[in-house]
Amino acid sequence: MTLALTGRSWIAGLRSAGSAPAGRAIEAATGRPLEPLYLEATDGELDRACRAAAEAFESTELTEISRRAALLRAVADRIEALGEPLLERAHLETALPMDRMRTERGRTCGQLRFFASLIEEGSWIGERLDPAQPQRTPLAKPEIRCFRVPIGPVAVFCASNFPLAFSVAGVDTAAALAAGCPAVVHAHFAHPGTAEAIGTVITEAVAALGFPEGTFSLLYGAGHGVGRRLVEHPAIRAVGFTGSRAGGRALMDLAARRPEPIPVYAEMSSVNPLFILPGALAGRGAAIARGLHSSATLGVGQFCTKPGLIFLERGAAAASFERELAALYSATAAQPMLHAGIRAGYEEKRRRVRAGARLVAQGAEPASPQQAQAFLHAVEAERFLADPRHQEEVFGPSALLVICDHHSQMLQCARSLEGQLTATLHAEPSDRDSAHALARILVHRAGRLVWNGYPTGVEISPAMVHGGPYPATSDSRSSSVGSLALERYSRWVSVQGAEGDALALALRKPQ
Amino acid sequence: MTLALTGRSWIAGLRSAGSAPAGRAIEAATGRPLEPLYLEATDGELDRACRAAAEAFESTELTEISRRAALLRAVADRIEALGEPLLERAHLETALPMDRMRTERGRTCGQLRFFASLIEEGSWIGERLDPAQPQRTPLAKPEIRCFRVPIGPVAVFCASNFPLAFSVAGVDTAAALAAGCPAVVHAHFAHPGTAEAIGTVITEAVAALGFPEGTFSLLYGAGHGVGRRLVEHPAIRAVGFTGSRAGGRALMDLAARRPEPIPVYAEMSSVNPLFILPGALAGRGAAIARGLHSSATLGVGQFCTKPGLIFLERGAAAASFERELAALYSATAAQPMLHAGIRAGYEEKRRRVRAGARLVAQGAEPASPQQAQAFLHAVEAERFLADPRHQEEVFGPSALLVICDHHSQMLQCARSLEGQLTATLHAEPSDRDSAHALARILVHRAGRLVWNGYPTGVEISPAMVHGGPYPATSDSRSSSVGSLALERYSRWVSVQGAEGDALALALRKPQ
Repeated sequence: MTLALTGRSWIAGLRSAGSAPAGRAIEAATGRPLEPLYLEATDGELDRACRAAAEAFESTELTEISRRAALLRAVADRIEALGEPLLERAHLETALPMDRMRTERGRTCGQLRFFASLIEEGSWIGERLDPAQPQRTPLAKPEIRCFRVPIGPVAVFCASNFPLAFSVAGVDTAAALAAGCPAVVHAHFAHPGTAEAIGTVITEAVAALGFPEGTFSLLYGAGHGVGRRLVEHPAIRAVGFTGSRAGGRALMDLAARRPEPIPVYAEMSSVNPLFILPGALAGRGAAIARGLHSSATLGVGQFCTKPGLIFLERGAAAASFERELAALYSATAAQPMLHAGIRAGYEEKRRRVRAGARLVAQGAEPASPQQAQAFLHAVEAERFLADPRHQEEVFGPSALLVICDHHSQMLQCARSLEGQLTATLHAEPSDRDSAHALARILVHRAGRLVWNGYPTGVEISPAMVHGGPYPATSDSRSSSVGSLALERYSRWVSVQGAEGDALALALRKPQ
Repeated sequence: MTLALTGRSWIAGLRSAGSAPAGRAIEAATGRPLEPLYLEATDGELDRACRAAAEAFESTELTEISRRAALLRAVADRIEALGEPLLERAHLETALPMDRMRTERGRTCGQLRFFASLIEEGSWIGERLDPAQPQRTPLAKPEIRCFRVPIGPVAVFCASNFPLAFSVAGVDTAAALAAGCPAVVHAHFAHPGTAEAIGTVITEAVAALGFPEGTFSLLYGAGHGVGRRLVEHPAIRAVGFTGSRAGGRALMDLAARRPEPIPVYAEMSSVNPLFILPGALAGRGAAIARGLHSSATLGVGQFCTKPGLIFLERGAAAASFERELAALYSATAAQPMLHAGIRAGYEEKRRRVRAGARLVAQGAEPASPQQAQAFLHAVEAERFLADPRHQEEVFGPSALLVICDHHSQMLQCARSLEGQLTATLHAEPSDRDSAHALARILVHRAGRLVWNGYPTGVEISPAMVHGGPYPATSDSRSSSVGSLALERYSRWVSVQGAEGDALALALRKPQ
């Protein structure tokens, strides 16, 4: 079995005719172009996809919870049924190892089924009931109930670094469909074949389960034109995006300038600071060096939660930690990155951002232009505080040690940080007061505090917050992973004075 | 006892020196200027207020729930202790009757105490716990918990039409302080004395309870300069506003263009459509006419939930309803509006927006330039659909009947509506299917559906949603009244791997 790829967008159940070439996939490990040629969706096709999404949104099918749950499960089943060819294509397009692709498929399908179970369980809808008080004076109180309703058609922008879990059937699409919102997805140019294979099974599942065609579309486009027109389309009511800070901010600005502004959930950039307190550094520095190196170089450092800044206090334990970490970085193999743009960005950013820092260690030399070399640098806290460039994300296997003279300087560094997805503390009982002082600063600068652990590995669970203050995300009130992600494409509505719950029921599950 | 008014801003516990005159209060019923002269806060004072708010935010006092609850209650007690002079000043400044001022004071103090109880009860914090699974393969699962934390210093813009309940100690300030956020409040020029009296008791309560001075500031400014600089100040993390569509949109645009964009909760405009279905029109048209007239002219039509558009189907029952409503409008007294700007806006807007509509009835002639005359107009649905001007809000005692030829035209009108705070349906059991079809459209266009009632009278309760899609508000995911308002100045955070709940506790209630 092989994947049947055509190079066309899916426009509300129909293959796009396409127009100008949008480009071919590139085999990430070699730079070799892959078939087929992808064609850009036309303006008319984009408009058709968005209008069909608006029609689908007001249809009855999407209001039925059991049908939406069935759709999410059908998509998961059909992704699994694509078998090894899907994983092989994703591996070719991204250079991510087959094992990782297998794990990510599991995460993606698990996530679809997780949302199906959540909407069946139903508490996410948050229903609250204020009973009527007909005898109240001076005015009788009517019955009021509130619950969440879907926000409307969602534009989803796929991530380059998770070709399955944050892409066409990834968390934003799953959350949108689960909440009752049609999804118009913008494929990422780095893995167009993987995107098409997934888009095809979603389109098939939508048709097989009798949903309106506009429930799902998948658009290809070169450059920013298709994405811009998508965010500007009046039928679109919210945007999900995972990618760069520049890209996310551009979408935020577009959405804010619309005649009718809409929410944007952009997950953009994070350096994921990790603080090692003296007790932890002295007691288990070697173990932390191993854990940190593994987290920071996992997936060639191409995780949004990669720890990129490590804060520690000067001294013998710090020197020993630095030697241990340097040894691990020196032994790190060069590996191919997701695509040439990311590889070039890594090189440019690392040179620019680490320019003022001392080189501590570098990994094996790259054997091909696609591979990235691991780098460890260090800088004094005083210089770190003086130059905001040190806070910039370097997407790839590069990290920076920040050497503090004392604890209050570490607190000062924490206070200087921009918004982050995560912040990590390593502390022993002897560090307790310092750790809590640090945590009280970091809690206002990150979406997740990790205690004696490492930030990579984002659990899909009820208590997960994968978010954080700008520029980590565009909207610190939300999470793009876990149960909370289900709430992002909804809004609250009250129903007042409806006898019994007839009207409230009618609004969610019409006959 | 009289109110001691100075004409100065409160800057983190200190009286402003002030600079340029910002203007005097005007007695709304007569146009007579009142003492004292109010002075604009300087740029330096504004900066000081915002920086002090940022410092207060990171202090420990604001993290203690019992202390925050005590502060909210102390503010309520001190507002009540101001006694009649506060109500008299508010009455002078707004022309709202003393009875209404008394009720609004009750609402304001009740709201402060309601939030105090809510934070003590604690469930709003939304804590969720994922237990650790140390034996899980391939990777152990750490314990993860999440909960809400305050977002940071909030800029609050007061409303003209609720000098107490949506102003200095109104719902946005109460929600901000309850959540643990300092508030920097921008006084409304229409009731500066009322604002100062309240600002003074908050300042006193902040000092008496040992909170950092930056917990609260109150700024006066003429024009838009102070407001603009406030929203642009880097220490401000969120904005609350109740007012006009133009004003709210201006703040949204400013906040979106900041280097670090922040959430804006602007409650802006709504025409609150009311649909009367044939069974209800035939069965109880006269009663609906009375209820509607009362809701639409209450407070001189100066409520954001005033029903401004009434949809009904042509026929004998509609003609009879129109006659009954016309008789009520003809007998409506002219009354003074909140201030000259609102009075002028009412006149201009009504003339422009109702230009193409048929005059059905008008109330008594105004006896002074401060008073507003009530107007009832009517238009055919076809013309309504052709001209979006008919959807514009006319703030004041003016309403528009929209006469539909048949039910599907009524549905078409519903589909054409912009975002609203409320939408109301009057229906009898015989209207059930039509009403549900209408509700399924309206639920995506309003924050609250009222069934066989009237939209004015917004309960402060757990299930209330006072919000709605743009342009009713800037953020349809939130409510500015009730328990849900407490969530708007918070964000989610996860804590991963903290043994026991020591760290989580430390983050919310330090020793």
